[in-house]
Amino acid sequence: MVGAESFLIGLDFGTESARGVLLDVADGSQIASHAFPYRHGVMTAALPDGTGLPRGFALQDAADYVEAAEVILAALGSGRRIAGIGLGFTASSPLPARADGTALSALYPSDPHSYVKLWKHAAAQPYAASINRGGGAFLDNFGGKVSGEWLLAKAAQIQAEAPIIWREADRFIEAGDWLVWQLTGVEARSLDFAAYKAQFSAGSGYPSDTVPGLLERLSAPLPVGSSAGRLNAAWQARTGILGEPAVAVAVIDSHVVLPAVGGVSPGTLVGALGTSAAYLLLADTDRPLPFGIEGVAHGAALPDLWCYEAGQAGFGDVLAWFVSAFPRAEERSESFRLYDAAAAMLQPGDSRLLALDWWSGNRVPYADSALSGLIAGFGLHTTSTHIYRALLEALCFGARSIVDHFRAGNLAVDRVVLTSGLTRRNPLLLQIMADVQATEILVPDILNPTAVGAAIHGAVAAGVVADFPEGSARFGARAYDRFEPDARRAAIYEVLYRQYRDLAASRTVRQTLSQLGAGVVEPTTISGTAAAGRAETARTAIGRN
Amino acid sequence: MVGAESFLIGLDFGTESARGVLLDVADGSQIASHAFPYRHGVMTAALPDGTGLPRGFALQDAADYVEAAEVILAALGSGRRIAGIGLGFTASSPLPARADGTALSALYPSDPHSYVKLWKHAAAQPYAASINRGGGAFLDNFGGKVSGEWLLAKAAQIQAEAPIIWREADRFIEAGDWLVWQLTGVEARSLDFAAYKAQFSAGSGYPSDTVPGLLERLSAPLPVGSSAGRLNAAWQARTGILGEPAVAVAVIDSHVVLPAVGGVSPGTLVGALGTSAAYLLLADTDRPLPFGIEGVAHGAALPDLWCYEAGQAGFGDVLAWFVSAFPRAEERSESFRLYDAAAAMLQPGDSRLLALDWWSGNRVPYADSALSGLIAGFGLHTTSTHIYRALLEALCFGARSIVDHFRAGNLAVDRVVLTSGLTRRNPLLLQIMADVQATEILVPDILNPTAVGAAIHGAVAAGVVADFPEGSARFGARAYDRFEPDARRAAIYEVLYRQYRDLAASRTVRQTLSQLGAGVVEPTTISGTAAAGRAETARTAIGRN
Repeated sequence: MVGAESFLIGLDFGTESARGVLLDVADGSQIASHAFPYRHGVMTAALPDGTGLPRGFALQDAADYVEAAEVILAALGSGRRIAGIGLGFTASSPLPARADGTALSALYPSDPHSYVKLWKHAAAQPYAASINRGGGAFLDNFGGKVSGEWLLAKAAQIQAEAPIIWREADRFIEAGDWLVWQLTGVEARSLDFAAYKAQFSAGSGYPSDTVPGLLERLSAPLPVGSSAGRLNAAWQARTGILGEPAVAVAVIDSHVVLPAVGGVSPGTLVGALGTSAAYLLLADTDRPLPFGIEGVAHGAALPDLWCYEAGQAGFGDVLAWFVSAFPRAEERSESFRLYDAAAAMLQPGDSRLLALDWWSGNRVPYADSALSGLIAGFGLHTTSTHIYRALLEALCFGARSIVDHFRAGNLAVDRVVLTSGLTRRNPLLLQIMADVQATEILVPDILNPTAVGAAIHGAVAAGVVADFPEGSARFGARAYDRFEPDARRAAIYEVLYRQYRDLAASRTVRQTLSQLGAGVVEPTTISGTAAAGRAETARTAIGRN
Repeated sequence: MVGAESFLIGLDFGTESARGVLLDVADGSQIASHAFPYRHGVMTAALPDGTGLPRGFALQDAADYVEAAEVILAALGSGRRIAGIGLGFTASSPLPARADGTALSALYPSDPHSYVKLWKHAAAQPYAASINRGGGAFLDNFGGKVSGEWLLAKAAQIQAEAPIIWREADRFIEAGDWLVWQLTGVEARSLDFAAYKAQFSAGSGYPSDTVPGLLERLSAPLPVGSSAGRLNAAWQARTGILGEPAVAVAVIDSHVVLPAVGGVSPGTLVGALGTSAAYLLLADTDRPLPFGIEGVAHGAALPDLWCYEAGQAGFGDVLAWFVSAFPRAEERSESFRLYDAAAAMLQPGDSRLLALDWWSGNRVPYADSALSGLIAGFGLHTTSTHIYRALLEALCFGARSIVDHFRAGNLAVDRVVLTSGLTRRNPLLLQIMADVQATEILVPDILNPTAVGAAIHGAVAAGVVADFPEGSARFGARAYDRFEPDARRAAIYEVLYRQYRDLAASRTVRQTLSQLGAGVVEPTTISGTAAAGRAETARTAIGRN
């Protein structure tokens, strides 16, 4: 009988599209998934009406989220009893809205500042710099600075550049929270967005003095796993969903995945290896932000736990760069396959190369986007396979460096879980990761983990499970691929990793890589006294230092 | 009338073959050339009778030189009046001989130690190390050490490993001197070989106490440009040469080229850009050996001048490596053409890369063959053309570093002449060299310059010309391709070169490159306390140093 069955829906609102999954409450299985691209995608050049956009703008139309939600909820839920719905969302992607929830883009469709400023909207960076110059204790948990991608800077940009929009904006709200508001009729801010993207803390609230008038446009956040409200009647009608499901407060997409991959307990490090790499470390002890680590908040990603954030600015993009620059086949995937097969025949140290993985800059610990990559150890014996393997190794050294920075801050890292596309395609990378970390690497065997994590939030909000550990156990990954370190390989990588660390720590190396990465050479004038000048130059350089 | 014409013959005895040129005394023109490969080439695996050779041996059969000399002299000189003959020869390539000039390999054909130990015979290196440990003032002009490629070490090896051969050897003599002895019947040692390869000096003679019994097997050297004697009657009969030509004392092949390319005056730097790069700087002032420079002797390469030696361990081999590892066409020459054409479209700084050119180690100033290459500055924008251009630039930075080390030793470098194969094929390299050095680069337009230089030695020995400047003017290169520096490009390279110098000077960088180049990783044991150990490791690495 249909009425007795009960389901969960998880929604993952990404950058280009949204995806939903349908889980069976009875046995935890994933029954269906459905994806839908945003009608206007990411708007960087023009608004829907053709209005041109300034450089650095990256906007979205909130109406696209509504459309995607309706299509997906109907596809998965029509005629089914849904117990709970959860949402993961990109962040910080805030928009200005009226007190009744109307997005200002519906009222001012020709003003860029009425739209969602997507997480990668870069034009607010100068406002972040200004906020950072002002300082404040609220920066302590974020390495001393906010990013131009976060809410405060984006609010400041509207306040400065679009005073009419700012005046008309009763609310300034993350798109994830806004969509929950649409679904339930209840404005329910997520502590996850508030803590990581608006620097809210339980003790001090929002840093309200950073942007005039901001505080009155925000509201107090709710813990994740709370129910924002029930899917309202209008949405039930539009989607055909039965059963008045609880809608959980929204969660940052990179955080919502945690319960789907077993990331619910202290000492667990969850890494998402994609174009770049993002790491979350859960802890139950209050430690100062370790040197080089990027941010931390309490109870925001998961109740009662500290969740530290760190990342590598480049990861899969480095490998893709190499395979594209030096292809071995017409198809990139075939090039990857050939390189991986050849690199797997090598042992640690065989390449006699060592790379610094900073092709896209470095986030931990130097927070320097101008840094660039380096490969050392070339000889006439060096092959392209050697280089590819050295890049794999360097990415793992970069990951280990982050683990070491956590440990240096007296944070335990007991269990390492790695997720996302690269982990399914590249067992060699994962074996090297295990050997470099001298630690077992767990790779969850689960489809659509981000949407499943969102569904678990829905389960907690609906009371289907008592807490996230139970939700993780019932609905998260049930099997893991395990990559075990080999003692001999680990011992060799220990030596190479120390060389990596020493190179990375060299001020001369970093200064060179930063100057090269910035790509600006200020010519030095060679005057008529060139020879004398050069001789002097040379003299200062001489000496075995 | 044939009898009135007069000619010179220059012979260039290289590693695999000998080549001769015929010059017309009247107008200095090069009339003919003739090459002949050695019958047994370089023997590294077995002697002519099949006797196997130990690892590191590289021998030649002196009889092959005689055969080549006879073929070439007959081909060029038969029926012609030859005024003078000169010889350039690889060095140090010594052999043991009887007092009558008989090579011991003719008497003991199954004993490896009776043969010529070619310059690249590596098995004497331990004896060099032993001599270097003994020390001595004779090392001052050679950076404190002799090479295993030189005569003293090779004599010590025979003395230690083949006492019978050593006892039977009345003479231990460079193959070039031995061949002159064969041609003239006169044992005439060259001061060039003696000074650079046996550490002879006018004041102290040979360092006789390094190898017991060595001194009695040597003889006093003659200045270059001297006549060793006349081509004897037997050789005139064998070759059909008319006119009893003077035979000049032999010269190291890398030195004999000097007068052919205008290298006859103080302040001239002559570089030979091949697989590796060798530089000779002429000076008329007595300076201590500058830091990092490899060797110097007075009056040995040319009369009355100091000639300093320095080099880059790798040069053309680095470019060949890249083009082979990342080909753009089936044919290597076509790959080179495509890379050169693409790299020529870039301006200095465009690649945003900086390389250290140590693929084959570094000679000046670090004398470390274990050093390896490095490329810094990678980003997702980097292309293979960028890398190729960065390698060209790095080779030029390496060359400039040598010039700077000369200048730092208060030696003038007023004129830069570059020769050999790469200079004919790669105008882009030469333009970058001019821009990096901020100096005009001269490339002589001359065929077979080494053999022509040998012919000029023959002309001086025969009295056809009064001295080397006159010989150079009459028989050397008459035209030069000139590459002029561009002020803007030079100014940018000045900045990049300083970065190169700073990277090269970094102890951390060199230590890493040396460890990687040595290719030996001593694994560090990861014990049961791995996590604790790693945490400690990490802690020592933390801090923005």
